[in-house]
Amino acid sequence: MRILGIDPGYGIVGFGIIDNNLGEINVVDYGVIETDKSLSLPERLNIIEKALIEIFETYSPQVVAVEELFYFKNQKTIIQVAEARGVIIQTCYSRCKNIFEYTPLQIKQALTGVGRAEKAQVQFMTKTILNLSSIPKPDDAADALAVAICHSQINSALNENRI
Amino acid sequence: MRILGIDPGYGIVGFGIIDNNLGEINVVDYGVIETDKSLSLPERLNIIEKALIEIFETYSPQVVAVEELFYFKNQKTIIQVAEARGVIIQTCYSRCKNIFEYTPLQIKQALTGVGRAEKAQVQFMTKTILNLSSIPKPDDAADALAVAICHSQINSALNENRI
Repeated sequence: MRILGIDPGYGIVGFGIIDNNLGEINVVDYGVIETDKSLSLPERLNIIEKALIEIFETYSPQVVAVEELFYFKNQKTIIQVAEARGVIIQTCYSRCKNIFEYTPLQIKQALTGVGRAEKAQVQFMTKTILNLSSIPKPDDAADALAVAICHSQINSALNENRI
Repeated sequence: MRILGIDPGYGIVGFGIIDNNLGEINVVDYGVIETDKSLSLPERLNIIEKALIEIFETYSPQVVAVEELFYFKNQKTIIQVAEARGVIIQTCYSRCKNIFEYTPLQIKQALTGVGRAEKAQVQFMTKTILNLSSIPKPDDAADALAVAICHSQINSALNENRI
């Protein structure tokens, strides 16, 4: 099963693609979609959509896992990040109906066993689970891989996180 | 010039289409796009996108005017409304590059001359300017017509509200 994990953003969208073959997890690719702040809102949303379509065409993920947003954590940029997240969900959904969302707490819990784990612990576990020689950079890409791993660790057959 | 005004929402998106021919303003159509709350987020965003595409195919607007969001006004639903607004802007932008946004203050000012006007005053002016026999219903459709009128009243050549 190929999973596309997404860390939603406006200036930077993290993405991470992993394969889970009967519990054997391998990284396929990861990176970020960046939008220049000199561009207008519609132009930036357009770049995000086009880049996601390219990711779908290149990797054909079967499942998408997206991090949830909370307004108390992102008050200053919440509107722009949510606008981008809407475009991300709509673009993915029109290509793949299996979309799930996970809270930061669920992601930390799934990767480290501890809901209040530090970012560094989550990144260390991402590196370890994917058998990488170093922690994936930038952070947004590492976060996206963590969401993808989270989905593969949680019993998704329960469908509790389906959106 | 044909203007599509949009009052962004998640459960209800208001739309209003007007023609401005050398200052003579006529209503073309107005209404709402509704998404059932029993549906999932991606399904609801998908309905909004499809309905907007239909509006574009039917009416071919040359300009889009969208109301701006403020998180202090919509705290409870801000994330969902902004997600829908992202989809609205992206869907419109891929069909029409002329997108403008206006604050509630600008809309009230443009229609009534008073930035702190009551909703009823704005609705009365919408009815009067469009030469309608009654106030357009529901409120979301009236709000969308008001955004479209606002764009036609403001000197858009200045491009200040272009997004």
